[in-house]
Amino acid sequence: MTKTNDERLLDKKITRRQMMKMTGAGAVGLAIGASGMGGVLKAFGKDILEDQSTVANKVDFYGKHQSGIATAVQTSIYFASLNVLVTSKSQLQDLFQMWTPLAVQMMNGDLIGTASENALIPPKDTGEAKGLDANNLTITFGVGPSLFEKKELGLSHLKPKELQDLPHFPKDQLEETFTGGDICIQACADDPQVAFHAVRNLIRAASGKVSLKWSQAGFNSIPLKNGKKETPRNLFAFKDGTENPITDNEKDMNEVVWVQSGDSKPWMAGGTYLVARRIQMHLETWDRTALREQEATFGRHRGSGAPLGKKGEFEAMDIDRKDANGNPIVPETSHTFLAKKANARLLRRSFSYSSGVMDATGTFDAGLLFISFQKNPKQFIKIQNSLGRLDKMNEYITHRGSALFACFPGIKKGSYIGEALFNTL
Amino acid sequence: MTKTNDERLLDKKITRRQMMKMTGAGAVGLAIGASGMGGVLKAFGKDILEDQSTVANKVDFYGKHQSGIATAVQTSIYFASLNVLVTSKSQLQDLFQMWTPLAVQMMNGDLIGTASENALIPPKDTGEAKGLDANNLTITFGVGPSLFEKKELGLSHLKPKELQDLPHFPKDQLEETFTGGDICIQACADDPQVAFHAVRNLIRAASGKVSLKWSQAGFNSIPLKNGKKETPRNLFAFKDGTENPITDNEKDMNEVVWVQSGDSKPWMAGGTYLVARRIQMHLETWDRTALREQEATFGRHRGSGAPLGKKGEFEAMDIDRKDANGNPIVPETSHTFLAKKANARLLRRSFSYSSGVMDATGTFDAGLLFISFQKNPKQFIKIQNSLGRLDKMNEYITHRGSALFACFPGIKKGSYIGEALFNTL
Repeated sequence: MTKTNDERLLDKKITRRQMMKMTGAGAVGLAIGASGMGGVLKAFGKDILEDQSTVANKVDFYGKHQSGIATAVQTSIYFASLNVLVTSKSQLQDLFQMWTPLAVQMMNGDLIGTASENALIPPKDTGEAKGLDANNLTITFGVGPSLFEKKELGLSHLKPKELQDLPHFPKDQLEETFTGGDICIQACADDPQVAFHAVRNLIRAASGKVSLKWSQAGFNSIPLKNGKKETPRNLFAFKDGTENPITDNEKDMNEVVWVQSGDSKPWMAGGTYLVARRIQMHLETWDRTALREQEATFGRHRGSGAPLGKKGEFEAMDIDRKDANGNPIVPETSHTFLAKKANARLLRRSFSYSSGVMDATGTFDAGLLFISFQKNPKQFIKIQNSLGRLDKMNEYITHRGSALFACFPGIKKGSYIGEALFNTL
Repeated sequence: MTKTNDERLLDKKITRRQMMKMTGAGAVGLAIGASGMGGVLKAFGKDILEDQSTVANKVDFYGKHQSGIATAVQTSIYFASLNVLVTSKSQLQDLFQMWTPLAVQMMNGDLIGTASENALIPPKDTGEAKGLDANNLTITFGVGPSLFEKKELGLSHLKPKELQDLPHFPKDQLEETFTGGDICIQACADDPQVAFHAVRNLIRAASGKVSLKWSQAGFNSIPLKNGKKETPRNLFAFKDGTENPITDNEKDMNEVVWVQSGDSKPWMAGGTYLVARRIQMHLETWDRTALREQEATFGRHRGSGAPLGKKGEFEAMDIDRKDANGNPIVPETSHTFLAKKANARLLRRSFSYSSGVMDATGTFDAGLLFISFQKNPKQFIKIQNSLGRLDKMNEYITHRGSALFACFPGIKKGSYIGEALFNTL
């Protein structure tokens, strides 16, 4: 029997990634209907032809920008903040050079080191990710203000003026155990063990050179509708990330996220600033709050994610709308109203966490590991100051941790993480 | 054009569950080869025809036994230990009656309550699982020894003699914040937000009737090989669960897991005992240990999971094997040797956790939420006593939490969780 084009197309080896793409649609109960399997093939043939990668679920380590920023958000994060123990710039340079091939291997879904093991020494790879694929692992490296203040490292003249500890914001209750750090490693993947494995192996390889200051695991559950990923919901059940810049729109990303040449120290061109905030969410209080009040707190409808008084999630917020009596439709103390009023934009890339119980109160220790990327920390500061004491959300959340990191630009093949910083005298 | 049988087959509505089954094979890079898509259909047609469920990824709440015990292990757990605040047996009965339909709804992938919301009151469902399917959610309920000691509840005569706090084991360093509890709720799902949502909504619905004593989130990453799920690895990179009874072998499960009529108090027939141990794993120490020593600690090969000196994961352990010099091949101080020597069996159903940093030492707060099911807690006690002070594993782990719960038998339609307990005078 002569094969159809669709069948020929499928005679290629189909990677896990491609098969998952095909299933995206099936996943929400797509009725294949009268067209049979041929229809499915037509709908997905383009992806199958275009994606020639032989490594399953892999994100490229090399590129103009680091991974884990513009990358579609994954389901798991393990975020680690480290202090450095090395005492010279060249030792620090060695550290990032040593980390580079390990990050490449792990993002390729490989174990680090070689397959053959000498039983008389510890295995090169800690091994818990064996048998799991790359799971879209991304590893994002950044450096904090405190790194540049270590005199022995001789980096103070290279510190961007933007890289300063975030100011104290009203209602902050920061704990030292979730605040600051010299270096961050953000590992995100579609599997928690793969994300944890990445951080664990990088820290292990840097034994004696760094210490773990704080860390936080988190998750995102991404609903699928007609095969398309929807905006995930935070633990207050509201969609989080609706107003994000379009990550594959270069103009948008250059305006909001990527440091441009001349914006800052030259080594930061193509990089970005990462703000991390560990925000406890008082779920028990929130869950006693009427739906109308919850929506007035966010300024959005809970179900659809639409701006108050509108239908669609992605309709313009338009905070100046008034009702028949001249009252604002989006309350002036709502989170969105105040954030919008600041007239600044961020790329939000947050994860929820559920870390047990607050011993003192017996309530959930759960909330949001808020992460945003912006070309200048002022964008975040402007918004946070606008929220200030007015934000109705303050009743329901407490900021417990905070950190700011300058994330290096992307890495070219043959180069290493942070090369531009270390090559500057 | 006349449709082939395969195409007709696909003209049914395909649920997410079915499509995922199809992808199981694709997920490991199945070469579809010369047979084209027809081959895929032939391979999976049987599943598609047999599975008529219209709810995606659903585990049945009702049955002879509770879900989440014999159920294939999921990727996420949120385990909660509660204390009760109610002061009479009938109030406690009301609590479990009230929980029953909520558990059914959530396991069906539905939000609790009704879809229409009154904006002037708090929503019935906390909402963060909206848009996510059931994700094989299971909810398992158990009661701890302390519940029966509350005089006001009048349950003391119904306490099984097996239901006693576990004895102190050598090297235990239990913390009150991870120990004991009157009631446990074990929520497992293939999504962390779905598991957390279940516990949160049950506790919320019981506001004023229970308080949260401790909780722990965990994960399992399950490798796929040729479309088949493999035994997951713990954070020491060893496979965990190899020796488990076969969960769909009724004889095996009756011997190891399910309380039989006459074994205990009548209300426990068809139930089981759940042991939970929060075991910190000292990853940094482990990662400095030679592969041979790691394998001598477990008594198994790390890569394959096979008993030392054997090739296949599922080959018999046979701890009496000697080498040419008459020395035991499986070291007498290895975890497996000592566990095997106890001549007792368990159903292990554990999850890894990564909960940040141990403040005092800056090491990972990570490890295993060990969970086992057995028809009598003595099975666990026997093994744990055999491990005792000899177990080489003691160098690398610390037991930080412990609890024992009697899990009710399964629930019949029209009945409710724990009915047999409350119906006994």
